[in-house]
Amino acid sequence: MNLGLNKIEHLGIAVKSIDESNTLYTKILGVLPYKEEVVESEGVRTSFFQVGPNKIELLEALHSKSPIAKFIEKRGEGLHHVAYAVDDIRSEMSRFQKEGFQLLNTEPKIGADNKLVCFLHPKETGGTLIELCQDRR
Amino acid sequence: MNLGLNKIEHLGIAVKSIDESNTLYTKILGVLPYKEEVVESEGVRTSFFQVGPNKIELLEALHSKSPIAKFIEKRGEGLHHVAYAVDDIRSEMSRFQKEGFQLLNTEPKIGADNKLVCFLHPKETGGTLIELCQDRR
Repeated sequence: MNLGLNKIEHLGIAVKSIDESNTLYTKILGVLPYKEEVVESEGVRTSFFQVGPNKIELLEALHSKSPIAKFIEKRGEGLHHVAYAVDDIRSEMSRFQKEGFQLLNTEPKIGADNKLVCFLHPKETGGTLIELCQDRR
Repeated sequence: MNLGLNKIEHLGIAVKSIDESNTLYTKILGVLPYKEEVVESEGVRTSFFQVGPNKIELLEALHSKSPIAKFIEKRGEGLHHVAYAVDDIRSEMSRFQKEGFQLLNTEPKIGADNKLVCFLHPKETGGTLIELCQDRR
C-alpha cells in the first residue's frame, strides 16, 4: 500500500449537457464513455471516459441547487476539479487535516464510479477543488 | 506508436507566486518539484511535480501581458489547462483540424519540459484549454 497520492484518478469537467458533451468528448478523446451514472447526493449526472491510466468525468447538474449549476452560472463550462487516487483515504484525510487543510466531508463518502471520496476546500489549495478517492473494497 | 491520446500528461494550474505555491503543492502532493523552467515565449515561469504517471505544472506570469496574468485577473488562481500525451503531434493536430477544432498554433511549438506542443481553442472544447504534447526526440 502506498502513502500519498498515486496519480490523477480523474479530471472533472462541468458541462451543460452530458449528451452534447459526450459527443464532443468522444471526438476529442477518440473513445466512447464507458459509463454514465447519476449521483443524487451531489446533484449530478456523470459520464466517464478512460484515457490510459486516467479518466475524464463530465458532470451535468441535475437541478439548479447542484454545485455544478452554480459553478457554470459563475464561470461557464470547463475544468471543475481534480481527483487523486489514494490507497487509504482515511490516512490521507488525516494527513491533510494535520497539515491544516479543511476537509469538506469529515467521513469518506460514496462517490461516482465505485469510490470512497473526500473533497478539500479550495480556499487552502490555491483555488483548485481537490478530491481524494479510493476504490471501494 | 499509438494513435490518439495516451494519458493526461500534466494538469496546468495558474498561480500568483511559484515560490509560495511550490511550498503548498509540496504539502499537497508529498513530493518536491523536480524542475523549474522559464518559458519566455509563453510569458511564464513554471514548476513541475510528478504524481505517478502524471505531472502537475504550476504557472506564474512573468509579466502583465502573460496569458496567466489575464487568467488570474479574470478567474483567480486555479485549474488552467489539461495536457494530453500523444506519440505523433502532427497526426493528432491533423485529426483535430479535420474534426473542426481550431488550433491555436498551426505548427508544433517548443513548450516546457522538453515537449512539442499545440493548444486547441477552448471555444470548441467546451471551455477547457487543451494542450497536446509529444516528447522531443
